[in-house]
Amino acid sequence: MKQQLNRKITLKSRPSGMPRVEDFELRQEPVPAPGPGQVLLQTLFLSLDPYMRGRISDAKNYAAPVGLGEVIVGGTVSRVLESAAPGFNKGDIVEGPGGWQELSVLAAGSLRKVDPDLAPPSTALGVLGMPGLTAYFSILHVARPISGDVVVISGAAGAVGQLAGQIAKLAGCIVIGIAGSDDKLEYCQKTLGFDHVINYKKTPELASVLTKLCPAGVNVYLDGVGGAISQAVFGNLAFKARVVIIGQISQSNLVEPDLGPRSMRYLLTSRARIEGFLVGDWQSRNSEALLRLSGWLKAGQIQYSEHQVDGLENAPSAFIGMLSGANLGKTIVRVAD
Amino acid sequence: MKQQLNRKITLKSRPSGMPRVEDFELRQEPVPAPGPGQVLLQTLFLSLDPYMRGRISDAKNYAAPVGLGEVIVGGTVSRVLESAAPGFNKGDIVEGPGGWQELSVLAAGSLRKVDPDLAPPSTALGVLGMPGLTAYFSILHVARPISGDVVVISGAAGAVGQLAGQIAKLAGCIVIGIAGSDDKLEYCQKTLGFDHVINYKKTPELASVLTKLCPAGVNVYLDGVGGAISQAVFGNLAFKARVVIIGQISQSNLVEPDLGPRSMRYLLTSRARIEGFLVGDWQSRNSEALLRLSGWLKAGQIQYSEHQVDGLENAPSAFIGMLSGANLGKTIVRVAD
Repeated sequence: MKQQLNRKITLKSRPSGMPRVEDFELRQEPVPAPGPGQVLLQTLFLSLDPYMRGRISDAKNYAAPVGLGEVIVGGTVSRVLESAAPGFNKGDIVEGPGGWQELSVLAAGSLRKVDPDLAPPSTALGVLGMPGLTAYFSILHVARPISGDVVVISGAAGAVGQLAGQIAKLAGCIVIGIAGSDDKLEYCQKTLGFDHVINYKKTPELASVLTKLCPAGVNVYLDGVGGAISQAVFGNLAFKARVVIIGQISQSNLVEPDLGPRSMRYLLTSRARIEGFLVGDWQSRNSEALLRLSGWLKAGQIQYSEHQVDGLENAPSAFIGMLSGANLGKTIVRVAD
Repeated sequence: MKQQLNRKITLKSRPSGMPRVEDFELRQEPVPAPGPGQVLLQTLFLSLDPYMRGRISDAKNYAAPVGLGEVIVGGTVSRVLESAAPGFNKGDIVEGPGGWQELSVLAAGSLRKVDPDLAPPSTALGVLGMPGLTAYFSILHVARPISGDVVVISGAAGAVGQLAGQIAKLAGCIVIGIAGSDDKLEYCQKTLGFDHVINYKKTPELASVLTKLCPAGVNVYLDGVGGAISQAVFGNLAFKARVVIIGQISQSNLVEPDLGPRSMRYLLTSRARIEGFLVGDWQSRNSEALLRLSGWLKAGQIQYSEHQVDGLENAPSAFIGMLSGANLGKTIVRVAD
């Protein structure tokens, strides 16, 4: 059988600061046939996520960085074109680490089958995938809010923030969403049912606005943003508050470290806890989480929005847009039909 | 019975930055006779502790600040002069919140009897008092190191740091002490058995020195200091490290907030946890802790040192000295014999 040509996006140069489209390169190469236990996949949807900025940096991280010339890592929903692995058949829809490319050869063990009758397949990259799992575990297992707690979510309109806020609402919490555009915030409040929203770009006195909104303090802060927004929340933490750090997107494109007032003293006053979170640490409980998330989705108890972009060649610009906050909800590249 | 004259030290002006002796005022006033359930106490020993700096500031704290003209708060070991409370007799030695004064009238419920046969009574302010309890709960109940963990302690030669390091040694840990003088560090290493010591004043590259000492990272960081020392440790946290904030003495005398690089990104890499600690939250378990601490003390398994100063009138200068790191171990003012 003749080898198929694969189009893939590789790392051309390591970005300093905000990535530019010139840091990426589209290349064509043939893909090998799948070996025993492997499948050949056609990418349908590619997930774009903030964590990828860290993976193309050479700063210390939880995984080795993508090397120059290598394909950018990323979660995908794909169709099986050819299978040399038991249990996987041509035409199956699967979720896995396909990367920024049209074709991929992956070990069956890295794949999860997607049931296209349950929900649109792209949700395997969103509400029923990594962002949904992140929201579920970080809120319910790490922050563990109780009914009546005030839960503040930065990046509220992003893929994780949207779901985290809704899960906190299901847990009986008062949810305050922080984001950078009125459109996003209107969606959070009107469609998702967040109790309060704050446009940080229009709120120079964020700390005192929070104090007015929740004079008894913030019980849970889910933070994917960091920087000045976090500083404002840290001054408002309630007794025994829980802060879960899922990302620091405001810091990820800085060339020089951002300076801020040292804020550990707030923890003495509040006896709060701050904890770093990575969804992969929780994968032994993924099936529990997906069962509940899909139940809520089917029952209409959680909503989601996707920011879809067409064509693999547009992944770099869509990625840069996401890092700048252009997306409402989950950013997905539609690579093939 | 004629009223006795009490000498007490009050807050004359709220310090900005490092307190000066002029911020304090020695005053003489008669003390009232103890009412029902109260005792009249003669202060023998007054405890000086970093937390007092926060209590004479009007910044948000876990308790209301000491008002101008009010006696400075502080733990004391005292002798009962006169008792109107059942169970307390003249001559009993008690520990309680007597404050910076020679005589005090306190409710019996705020007092703990001290057994002078168990250990020198001043230890009720140190190893068998608040610093010992802080070390015990913060290390064993919050940080929960396991045998083989690397435990870093800032303020290593202070009242809490000395004990925390020894408790971590009893738990089978590798202990690294950080302090600001070679004398202190020699004591930590030779007398207390810490594994490694670092003089931060002579170590501009603290982060890389720590990386060399413990390439697998820091599992537990007990921090009473904050600032640049903490920043160096944060870059060296091991997977699932636990940081317990018991104070931030480096920050407590600043007029302008100290700026540092925002450091929450380290928590993503390490999935570490940072938690604020206040010993009062744990008081329901004090008897468990004191039983174990006194057992270790009697068995010679923990040592302690005291920095004693004579005379109530010298409390302000001794307090300022302690904030500047002049003390080795627990700072105590001997007020009467």
